[in-house]
Amino acid sequence: MHLTDIAALAEPTGEKILLLVLDGLGGLPLATGGLTELETARTPNMDALLASGDAGLHVPVAVGVTPGSGPGHLSLFGYDPLEYRVGRGALSALGIEFPLQPGDVAVRGNLCTVDQRGVLTDRRAGRIPTEEALPVLELLDAIEVSGAQTFVRPVKEHRFLLVLRPGEATEARVEDTDPGVTGVLPLEAVAVSPASEPAARIAREWLAQVPDALAGQTRANMVLLRGFATLPDWPRFPEVFRMRSVAIAAYPMYRGVARLVGMDAVAVEDDPAALIPALRERVEDYDFFFLHVKGTDKAGEDGDFERKVDIIERVDELLPALSEVAGITLITGDHSTPARMAGHSWHPVPFLLHGGPGRGHRNEGTAGFGESECARGSLGTIRGCELMPLAAARAGRLGKFGA
Amino acid sequence: MHLTDIAALAEPTGEKILLLVLDGLGGLPLATGGLTELETARTPNMDALLASGDAGLHVPVAVGVTPGSGPGHLSLFGYDPLEYRVGRGALSALGIEFPLQPGDVAVRGNLCTVDQRGVLTDRRAGRIPTEEALPVLELLDAIEVSGAQTFVRPVKEHRFLLVLRPGEATEARVEDTDPGVTGVLPLEAVAVSPASEPAARIAREWLAQVPDALAGQTRANMVLLRGFATLPDWPRFPEVFRMRSVAIAAYPMYRGVARLVGMDAVAVEDDPAALIPALRERVEDYDFFFLHVKGTDKAGEDGDFERKVDIIERVDELLPALSEVAGITLITGDHSTPARMAGHSWHPVPFLLHGGPGRGHRNEGTAGFGESECARGSLGTIRGCELMPLAAARAGRLGKFGA
Repeated sequence: MHLTDIAALAEPTGEKILLLVLDGLGGLPLATGGLTELETARTPNMDALLASGDAGLHVPVAVGVTPGSGPGHLSLFGYDPLEYRVGRGALSALGIEFPLQPGDVAVRGNLCTVDQRGVLTDRRAGRIPTEEALPVLELLDAIEVSGAQTFVRPVKEHRFLLVLRPGEATEARVEDTDPGVTGVLPLEAVAVSPASEPAARIAREWLAQVPDALAGQTRANMVLLRGFATLPDWPRFPEVFRMRSVAIAAYPMYRGVARLVGMDAVAVEDDPAALIPALRERVEDYDFFFLHVKGTDKAGEDGDFERKVDIIERVDELLPALSEVAGITLITGDHSTPARMAGHSWHPVPFLLHGGPGRGHRNEGTAGFGESECARGSLGTIRGCELMPLAAARAGRLGKFGA
Repeated sequence: MHLTDIAALAEPTGEKILLLVLDGLGGLPLATGGLTELETARTPNMDALLASGDAGLHVPVAVGVTPGSGPGHLSLFGYDPLEYRVGRGALSALGIEFPLQPGDVAVRGNLCTVDQRGVLTDRRAGRIPTEEALPVLELLDAIEVSGAQTFVRPVKEHRFLLVLRPGEATEARVEDTDPGVTGVLPLEAVAVSPASEPAARIAREWLAQVPDALAGQTRANMVLLRGFATLPDWPRFPEVFRMRSVAIAAYPMYRGVARLVGMDAVAVEDDPAALIPALRERVEDYDFFFLHVKGTDKAGEDGDFERKVDIIERVDELLPALSEVAGITLITGDHSTPARMAGHSWHPVPFLLHGGPGRGHRNEGTAGFGESECARGSLGTIRGCELMPLAAARAGRLGKFGA
């Protein structure tokens, strides 16, 4: 279903909705027949919600597809990530909370090394440490292009963000200048469409000044650009679902994705306990609360099964204080990050949906919140972008389709 | 899969198919851990079909979306209701079995009250009783517009159907004249597309005569128009599935939706037992039989759990006499109407599919036909519009896709 269809059904009154995302929640057993991280964790509060709620699995993007953080969250917000695609440059800007404006073109940059002929010898400038990259990036930020503003901001190590703010309308269909291999010259910034010519021209003029600006540098003496992207012009979440909406998250990336769809965003410390006061302060001002917990994903990425279990248990302890603010509680992840794989994976993600007085539920099993129980859950296996309509329906916020 | 793809695979020979729709069949337990209406009902005959058949759940429109009766039935007939949309005027015509012709424009009308300046004071004319509305509607039916025919037919209370039969081709993208609030003038009938100008012109000429026609009336002295719609030009069910098809239903709305997709339709008394003789008379003449039972939905809408259980049990008693006529029996609802919610809901709907010699089935559990059993069913949770291809396949009526 398209967001325009949802917007046509959405009603402005009903229960509040809490979306609690444990990043990378889905997991795998360490050995055949074992329990996953979530199944291992003692989660009496989640289990209690499940006992009077419903469970299922969701597929964030498509079967077999491992989601990045951007698409994983867009899906949870109801935006089909196969339809709503964010360019990598724009995601990079979100990740460092650069305040992109409509019309801006965001680009991922790499510091790199070229020889005296300009031939690439290292595409990442020896993975130069962040502190060493910072003064180099200041030199780049000082470059000026006529008729446009340009901004350079550090990301991490050799990676940076370049933002072009053209004085005229432009698309951002510009080819990468990174050839993907060493031993050749960097590529030209070529517009793929005539409407992208202004962006390409500004990029070329900016690139032409880089060798002089970095003339004194030994290893970071050139740059490569990838993923030219504009800020997408999408339906806004608060208008589609007719809810005043806020994100509460420690990491800028997640606040950025929330802002991208029009939510307000609040920064908190990187500790799940910090969510409680931040949430309580805003209970009256919003109808929808997206709370983000990063630790589960980090532990999964580190291959640390026990730490992921611990963080799930800590969040479970906080759960009553979180779920009390909303009639509807949806607990899930944006993708799976099994410790066993030490990375994101394509596995469907368990979810738990609770609440909706008079809206009802069907009875679940008794094994507690976990992948196996969710695979048998009454809500089946659905697409990630179907979760928000389901939550909105339970909140009494979606009207009837057709007569 | 699109209907054109199905039509390309459909074969004209095979088993007959019986689609038994218990309107609003899906339900909810009254309390956590309890049984739904269908699970509560003693249904030995449905349970016996299930024991040698297959079960699953279907989603009529989309996850979280509460279907109206029109979209719910279109889905059961294999028409994706997100793709095949019926305008509200056309649905209104179906609901009172007005014989719409291609080219007709159907419009929902409300009798309303205006003051001497024409300002709306009551958008529903005090919800005037049907018997009081009838003579007023006769006055409206007598209005004549040059170059077109117009028809006014009563629906209920202040609601009526207006049909415009233009002498020329027209689209029906005309804005509502109902401003949605009182204290203002009714809006103009404005064409949204140039091709809709003939319909808008006829509507305006008709509307201009209403004040004089209703001059003697106190409360019903003007009308509001909404939901201008033409009869959609869709693939016809009997041609898509290559089956001679008939609907047997007590309520005009359901016969109307069946006729909309090209089925024949037969009216019966509002008693499930009346389906048996109506079906037996026509066994030789048709390959597909859509039988409609309204009582389950009405009991659900009334919040009457026990009555819904009773009606399911009565239908179960009749089942052997119904299912014997067809090789394939499909029993389901067009949506859920949980008594607990006293209205339609978005919950997936249980279905049972039986028959098809040599087509096979996977073994189901033993708990009998009900939501929990269907959630574990071998056919999983599928879209409502996927049921007909599945039934046709089991009937041996769908050929191989590709070589």
